[in-house]
Amino acid sequence: MYQRLPAAVALPADAAQVAAILKICHRLQVPVVTRGAGTGLSGGALPHEDGVLMVTAKMRDIVRIDPLARTAVVQPGVRNLAVSDAAARYGLFYPPDPSSQVACTIGGNVAENSGGVRCLKYGLTVHNVVALRCLTAAGEEFEVSAADAGYDLLALLHGSEGMLAVVLEATVALAALPEARATMLCAFDSYQAGGDAIAAIVAAGVVPAGLEMMDGFAVEVVEEFLGLGYPKDAALVLICETDGLAEDARGQLAQVERICAGFGARDVRIAADDAERERMWRGRKAALPAVGRRATDYYCIDGTIPRHELGATLEKISELSKKHGLPCANVFHAGDGNLHPLIMFHAGDEDEARRARDFGSEILAACVAAGGTVTGEHGVGVEKLNEMCLQFKEEELAMFHGVKEAFDPAGLLNPGKAIPTLQRCAEFGMMHVHDGQLAHPELERF
Amino acid sequence: MYQRLPAAVALPADAAQVAAILKICHRLQVPVVTRGAGTGLSGGALPHEDGVLMVTAKMRDIVRIDPLARTAVVQPGVRNLAVSDAAARYGLFYPPDPSSQVACTIGGNVAENSGGVRCLKYGLTVHNVVALRCLTAAGEEFEVSAADAGYDLLALLHGSEGMLAVVLEATVALAALPEARATMLCAFDSYQAGGDAIAAIVAAGVVPAGLEMMDGFAVEVVEEFLGLGYPKDAALVLICETDGLAEDARGQLAQVERICAGFGARDVRIAADDAERERMWRGRKAALPAVGRRATDYYCIDGTIPRHELGATLEKISELSKKHGLPCANVFHAGDGNLHPLIMFHAGDEDEARRARDFGSEILAACVAAGGTVTGEHGVGVEKLNEMCLQFKEEELAMFHGVKEAFDPAGLLNPGKAIPTLQRCAEFGMMHVHDGQLAHPELERF
Repeated sequence: MYQRLPAAVALPADAAQVAAILKICHRLQVPVVTRGAGTGLSGGALPHEDGVLMVTAKMRDIVRIDPLARTAVVQPGVRNLAVSDAAARYGLFYPPDPSSQVACTIGGNVAENSGGVRCLKYGLTVHNVVALRCLTAAGEEFEVSAADAGYDLLALLHGSEGMLAVVLEATVALAALPEARATMLCAFDSYQAGGDAIAAIVAAGVVPAGLEMMDGFAVEVVEEFLGLGYPKDAALVLICETDGLAEDARGQLAQVERICAGFGARDVRIAADDAERERMWRGRKAALPAVGRRATDYYCIDGTIPRHELGATLEKISELSKKHGLPCANVFHAGDGNLHPLIMFHAGDEDEARRARDFGSEILAACVAAGGTVTGEHGVGVEKLNEMCLQFKEEELAMFHGVKEAFDPAGLLNPGKAIPTLQRCAEFGMMHVHDGQLAHPELERF
Repeated sequence: MYQRLPAAVALPADAAQVAAILKICHRLQVPVVTRGAGTGLSGGALPHEDGVLMVTAKMRDIVRIDPLARTAVVQPGVRNLAVSDAAARYGLFYPPDPSSQVACTIGGNVAENSGGVRCLKYGLTVHNVVALRCLTAAGEEFEVSAADAGYDLLALLHGSEGMLAVVLEATVALAALPEARATMLCAFDSYQAGGDAIAAIVAAGVVPAGLEMMDGFAVEVVEEFLGLGYPKDAALVLICETDGLAEDARGQLAQVERICAGFGARDVRIAADDAERERMWRGRKAALPAVGRRATDYYCIDGTIPRHELGATLEKISELSKKHGLPCANVFHAGDGNLHPLIMFHAGDEDEARRARDFGSEILAACVAAGGTVTGEHGVGVEKLNEMCLQFKEEELAMFHGVKEAFDPAGLLNPGKAIPTLQRCAEFGMMHVHDGQLAHPELERF
């Protein structure tokens, strides 16, 4: 959706070079956009046309692993999955697992506060990072830690999309690899039944390590690609995984099975071994590439709703799909109420692209109307600046700007992202149609 | 340790009255200190002599409980334990459990980001609050939520000691009451063995719902008070509790038992029933009143160290106790490495009071030297302003002041707490003896 060329690209190899780049840019008042692998889904690391794009690709050392303290110290360009790979010899792993974990970096994960399938049980990035060594916009070093007194700057930096500081090194928490995992797949014949089952599972106090859903259309697209034998003609397919000690993992899954049965689940399958378990997950994890095979372009939406609104919101998305004449496959982190509708369109067709944008905006407006929020885990970036105007009022946005001012008074770090200006919101307000829909095709999106 | 009279006391009954008080104080530029039950242990809610003390005692409604979403909406003056009491009928509870939970309030818990015995497993207050409705220093309402995009203001408000905003209403997360709890008590004959056992338990990936220790002197004082039959002549007594499904709780406790045996644990007892379980906990929970029976005054210290430094740090505290000629009982959240030495003294004796302060400062310096921090869960308040100068450098303190400025530019909310001025740190630096000890008897502590 977004493309822009920077004035220059820098590839620092160590902390001293990052500091030097920041000091030069600070002296010359040049914007700096820090970028990891560029896998973000809201344009947070989109370059600034008059600025330096500082890419952390060369800073990928795992500095040390401390198995007793269960921590790893890593540079910002280390890939998410590389941390778990290196920790495996100690029986440990790094829990947050965004879909892009093969490629995405820890620095980017901090910037976006990334989640993933396991975050229902293990938390987001902010819950798994214990300390950060950083540089200010002026290139001065500082450290923040979970054990610090004072205001919680560690939490503040998570999800700040590179606008407050630059991460040099992260100390991440490692978790023990579970003794056992138990995995189940089943089908529901209506959105309502599946959504209600999810709400009931969480309300019962079960905390699965994965509680994921796909709608019937997403299953169809995945089956066409991989032929895994997922249940056919279902409204929703659920994949649930529990982990822990063997008895506990099995016990929790049995509880999930009982609850699902009460909501009319059919085609219930329990993975007999690791091979079957991996086959169950493969379809969910390949949903985006599968959609990419079917459509020339797709627009991945990221909104969150209360769990008990899942059924009604999926119905609403289905109506919007008909209205805009664009197919939409739904895959979602059901346990978190975090939806990822995948709208299929042709980017070359201007009218389709406009409809895809409008469809996406209307999904987000439906999320807000259902008591939810315009983002789940993909951040704001440049994509959702307007939607931020819907969610926050002037006083609240002023607080955000005050925080930015405290860290980066010259506004050099990743300018124009994540937090809309008050003026932008005022302009957007004039364009905002007050009937539950959004209309802003003419408004420049960044 | 600290006493001060406010210029006026306000007891608002509802949000409108809180807003009115804040607006009047803002117009007249009068400081406002918000106070819950006043059970804090670092003087965070100490009045300002020219300011209004705003006490939330009348705002104690549990507005609603949503058992499906597992949340409760409460006013700031609601007592911590009252939330769990009200949630029990749904099989739910509010996990954070500071020792003062019978009296302390949710508003105060947010201000101090309180922990407790269960926080090793269930997290601190910040991990159990999903939204806050607040007022700015100027009396303007705003909301922050865990689902929000933008900078993480919800986390920022936790532990901010009433210096950024005033909480009107908190939405807290409720957890399912565990099906079972399994509780063990055992003794170790050396600090080192007990400390190493703790590090090994956590390194093994077991996450108990309580992992608490008392030293031999604390046990002696408690036995004198309650006669519970704790093991005699031990260096350390450990109480460990696991919870979850019955098999899981038992399985985890068996793992803890095996690890402890490897470090020479003796007098291992597993609670056979709830009565025995409660008797095990009673001594730990009564440690502070028991010390209060033995000494006219005691000073509760709050420092945190890496778990593998537990043994060495307890030895150090024992030496310091002899040096200062003051008895000190140690009770601590061992799993978090969070120490609470209880220094006994007579406040009427000026020399003893000075020695108690020095002893406390030296314990905190030992925590920092061991790679730890000057606070665990009791906050900074007025007590630890000087120690903050040890832990943070000028650039980092400037960031804290920048955040304060963004929220409360006139500096009216709880002035003089939590974050030392740069000038104070400069003065303290001149007095600070650079041999691992602190000397500041003459420096006014607030």
